[in-house]
Amino acid sequence: MVIDDLDNENLYEIELNHPKHRLMAPGPTMVPERVKMAMLRSIRHHRSQYFAGLLEQVRDGLREIFRTDGDILIFTSSGTGMLEAAVQNFFSEGDRVLVVNTGHFGDRWVRICQAYGLTVRVLEVEWGRAVNPKLIEQRLSEEVGREIKGVFVTHTETSTGIENDIEEIGKIVRETDALFLVDTVSGLATSRYQMDEWGVDVSLSASQKGLMCPPGLGFAAVSEKAWMANRRATLPRFYFDLASAKDGMADFKTPWTPAISIIYGVHEAIKMILSEGLENVWERHNKLAMAMRAGITAMNLTLFSINHAPNVTVVNCPDGVTSKELRGKILERFGIYLADGQGRLKDRVFRIGHMGYVDKLDVIATLGALEVVLKDFGHIFDEGAGLREALDVIRG
Amino acid sequence: MVIDDLDNENLYEIELNHPKHRLMAPGPTMVPERVKMAMLRSIRHHRSQYFAGLLEQVRDGLREIFRTDGDILIFTSSGTGMLEAAVQNFFSEGDRVLVVNTGHFGDRWVRICQAYGLTVRVLEVEWGRAVNPKLIEQRLSEEVGREIKGVFVTHTETSTGIENDIEEIGKIVRETDALFLVDTVSGLATSRYQMDEWGVDVSLSASQKGLMCPPGLGFAAVSEKAWMANRRATLPRFYFDLASAKDGMADFKTPWTPAISIIYGVHEAIKMILSEGLENVWERHNKLAMAMRAGITAMNLTLFSINHAPNVTVVNCPDGVTSKELRGKILERFGIYLADGQGRLKDRVFRIGHMGYVDKLDVIATLGALEVVLKDFGHIFDEGAGLREALDVIRG
Repeated sequence: MVIDDLDNENLYEIELNHPKHRLMAPGPTMVPERVKMAMLRSIRHHRSQYFAGLLEQVRDGLREIFRTDGDILIFTSSGTGMLEAAVQNFFSEGDRVLVVNTGHFGDRWVRICQAYGLTVRVLEVEWGRAVNPKLIEQRLSEEVGREIKGVFVTHTETSTGIENDIEEIGKIVRETDALFLVDTVSGLATSRYQMDEWGVDVSLSASQKGLMCPPGLGFAAVSEKAWMANRRATLPRFYFDLASAKDGMADFKTPWTPAISIIYGVHEAIKMILSEGLENVWERHNKLAMAMRAGITAMNLTLFSINHAPNVTVVNCPDGVTSKELRGKILERFGIYLADGQGRLKDRVFRIGHMGYVDKLDVIATLGALEVVLKDFGHIFDEGAGLREALDVIRG
Repeated sequence: MVIDDLDNENLYEIELNHPKHRLMAPGPTMVPERVKMAMLRSIRHHRSQYFAGLLEQVRDGLREIFRTDGDILIFTSSGTGMLEAAVQNFFSEGDRVLVVNTGHFGDRWVRICQAYGLTVRVLEVEWGRAVNPKLIEQRLSEEVGREIKGVFVTHTETSTGIENDIEEIGKIVRETDALFLVDTVSGLATSRYQMDEWGVDVSLSASQKGLMCPPGLGFAAVSEKAWMANRRATLPRFYFDLASAKDGMADFKTPWTPAISIIYGVHEAIKMILSEGLENVWERHNKLAMAMRAGITAMNLTLFSINHAPNVTVVNCPDGVTSKELRGKILERFGIYLADGQGRLKDRVFRIGHMGYVDKLDVIATLGALEVVLKDFGHIFDEGAGLREALDVIRG
């Protein structure tokens, strides 16, 4: 069984079989034609007034999407680079921090904090569940006298398919002096997020998820409380120095040469998101997720997660079929790319992303392909039920 | 006088006046149509076998272009991020290093080394001149007993328009235990560069210069000697961790989500470069530079630099005209973007980039525009002489 097996000398062969590729992964995601067209425009110099004007509009749009009046800083980076920036810029060696670990991306934050010599307290949450905010309250109260300087939480954790309750956690963290830092790399523009109202101090995101662009840009949104911590923070940093990025943004400049074509793309994607309406974008993702879950469970498959994020559905593999086999077959027969499990879930689950440039019929198409492939593998289920249930959600 | 003044509500107005934008800056540079077309292709997941096949070809191509058998590591980053990676991955706090500072990008390396607590020795070179390799030999011999662990040099320094003699410097550094680290961000695929033959241990570059792509990707090429130093290096690092990037490249994976569309672009650009022939690419840049310098000096303008790089021409502003005025006028009238001076040269020089997707007639067009604008400013020169001299070089 091959997974998207491809002879290196024949890189384009699979495209001849399936000229239409459906990237149903939880990032990177599909890119709208409008965004592609925008990215074709001539490269303008990043120190030109023209580019500054563009960057101002991107800044303004991202403020609306993060729901913040704070500073927006833009880097050529993946989301992980922005997580590192959140550690480097607000803390000093030995600082005590609390990482809420609800999956692969919580793990990543633990590793970054350790790489920079922080004293890391980890609230381990069973994979597939969101954190109970009361446990954070309890951990913070246990640490009295040993000041926790930052609480790190993942908004939507695509490795397990859960969403943490950032609003409730914010109410708890704001009662302390700790900074509240949120990885909303996959959450932004896919699930409700209100940085300022929820008391988030530092939000991190990237271009290739809800923002419907190719990967290449990372974003940090920073509150006043965070800037105060920044002035005391002594960890070494250069490329991801947020304070110099802030200085540059006063003239709508990035500190280093940015991924200009992707800035063009984000500029266009923001227009698409705001014209659809951010609330409608969130509602669309909710609807996609409900339809997908209804279809999946009607096919006699089970969901891995208990608390569901609206941008990804994590499905336990049916008995006797590995994720690699199932994903390989669906790619081979239909040109649909689903994601494998990450870390300890590798080959045990498959992950269907429905974020960004995805509509209701993409869900139906994916379920249709899955139905064909599941039957091939001898999975027992009520044929047609998955599509019927999903259509009921879509219709309703 | 405005420089590319642009009403923010009318972002596209300047394009109506000048639908053809000529970006004659020393990076970012113009992007070929073939590369743009490649970047339009559907986003493929970075953990797919398809993408691994692509990455293998990019790795192989970059090895040819760096002229190395060493490891090639790919990051979503600007060139500066790769300079930081070169510091983080091979040194420990307090290590003594020598930075050869021939301009703005030499300065940048000094600042990064200082940010990470290295003991930085700086060989200051007058701006506009290449370093005399004998001075490096002298400095290294003065430091006997106080081991210099790394020598940092900029290959082509676009702020001043010079090129350092990497081959000669390599002969000196290889007599010591120090690593030889070279910023060839602008030099790669514009000027002769032979990493292995010249004894370079770490080479850094990026996508938006000689590689003719939009900015977004950084590249590091690493020798065996450098990996030995890496194992002892204790500076904190995560996103730019080269050893984990090396592990990933064993399966043709990047550690984090890469700028996929720009990988497509680099894949295509490599094909263009290798089909032109790397030696021919270098020779083309030489010819462009000779034609540009012949034209500029025939227009009664003077060059800022003494030792010339083939990818940029740095020109002293004529009496009574600032760089801002001259660049603003040439943009306004002809849609050509020239770069300002950097750092201490701001407004005193203007910089004409001729790297990447630039041909002989782009040089002629730029000189033509310059002739018109210089006359408007009342500059005294032999009209027509610049174009005539440049054409003579091109013809010859």
